[in-house]
Amino acid sequence: MTDDERLPQPATADIDLVTVLHALGDPVRMTLLLSYADDAEHSCGPRDLGLDHLHKSTVSHHMRVLREAGVTTTRVAGRNRFVSLRRADLDSRFPGLLDALLAAQAAPAR
Amino acid sequence: MTDDERLPQPATADIDLVTVLHALGDPVRMTLLLSYADDAEHSCGPRDLGLDHLHKSTVSHHMRVLREAGVTTTRVAGRNRFVSLRRADLDSRFPGLLDALLAAQAAPAR
Repeated sequence: MTDDERLPQPATADIDLVTVLHALGDPVRMTLLLSYADDAEHSCGPRDLGLDHLHKSTVSHHMRVLREAGVTTTRVAGRNRFVSLRRADLDSRFPGLLDALLAAQAAPAR
Repeated sequence: MTDDERLPQPATADIDLVTVLHALGDPVRMTLLLSYADDAEHSCGPRDLGLDHLHKSTVSHHMRVLREAGVTTTRVAGRNRFVSLRRADLDSRFPGLLDALLAAQAAPAR
């Protein structure tokens, strides 16, 4: 973690459950969550995220929804932006929820 | 549980995580979930659900979203309908998720 600028995001105490569920109740945003679940920083290009089929502005929209819900954080370094999961913040705010969601996503295909 | 008719609902194996999260990513539907968390059968009247401020058709819409997502089941007994949580089915499909959601909802107010 660095002192680079971050895009606006809710404080941990302000992360709202219904807002998080709304953010994750979309197949593209669930795909993004699974990408971010490696706890690495990710660039914002659709190709890097396996979302080549979507327009860049669409991907940006979905990333903003996740950030504004408190699911992700975006670090700005010069002209680059790097997105990562707020795992510690989510675990602090809603213990066990993220693990349950990731386990549920890994449940056998229906 | 009786042999009364039930309104259409997905089989347990067909319950989809993103659909469930979308269903619960709404404040009215989260309120309904908390009502149903007592595992009792509930009638469908807005008053019974503490939702007097909403039109009956609005409440019906939200209840349908929950049922079609696989969160609730609706038993039809003559002219009456009774809604309850599919706790066992959800626990079977996504172990730990419902408990984590209910615990998260009980997290200290932001």
